[in-house]
Amino acid sequence: MMRKIEHIGIAVADLDKSNELFTRLLGKENYKTESVEGEGVETSFFQVGDTKVELLQASRPDSPIAKYLEKKSEGVHHISFDVEDIHAEIKRLKEAGFEILNETPKQGADNKIVVFLHPRSTNGVLVELCQNQ
Amino acid sequence: MMRKIEHIGIAVADLDKSNELFTRLLGKENYKTESVEGEGVETSFFQVGDTKVELLQASRPDSPIAKYLEKKSEGVHHISFDVEDIHAEIKRLKEAGFEILNETPKQGADNKIVVFLHPRSTNGVLVELCQNQ
Repeated sequence: MMRKIEHIGIAVADLDKSNELFTRLLGKENYKTESVEGEGVETSFFQVGDTKVELLQASRPDSPIAKYLEKKSEGVHHISFDVEDIHAEIKRLKEAGFEILNETPKQGADNKIVVFLHPRSTNGVLVELCQNQ
Repeated sequence: MMRKIEHIGIAVADLDKSNELFTRLLGKENYKTESVEGEGVETSFFQVGDTKVELLQASRPDSPIAKYLEKKSEGVHHISFDVEDIHAEIKRLKEAGFEILNETPKQGADNKIVVFLHPRSTNGVLVELCQNQ
């Protein structure tokens, strides 16, 4: 079950500049930054109500964010939904016809395990499921 | 002050198909559909935790959603933030250097008044502010 929108991931070219921009936009500072080595990203998190905005900057050329920015432009990269049991959700969504990009959950930022659904099965939206560890 | 993420707006080509898809994805039905004549859109809303997913289909060729789909593809169209006082937020954000697309709030879906910020001032993200009427 999708319990809530855990965060909105936004691809940015320059994390320092975007941190400053989102601090002005949201009227508050980020509450943390974190490197996710496995994904090759530097992240920055802002709390907004019950949800978060996660800025994502590539930390190496083969990062998914670097590849994304080569093809597209800065902007919303993914929507992440909080789930209680990620394995049960993977099973449910596969049976419902969605395409899971990594069936074995991987380490995400903010102490989560995550899987992604292919945007061609989800109306062009890159959907992440995340479960607290 | 941005109190919470009120909804995520997703541009879709075929609202019926996308309603079916998001019902499968979210494991629940939409709670309403609504036409917004001024914007030329048909909308469909799903509640997810404290936030909503709003699907947007153009209802006429000059709709902003029709123009968006001509240039881009289906996917996340805008992020909407709930504000208590939209006029105070417009003033704050203008002073902070953001570009307001419509300085006079206009009628949005779901009994809100809304303004948009130009994505070139917000890291490629089309940001909506909305206030309950």
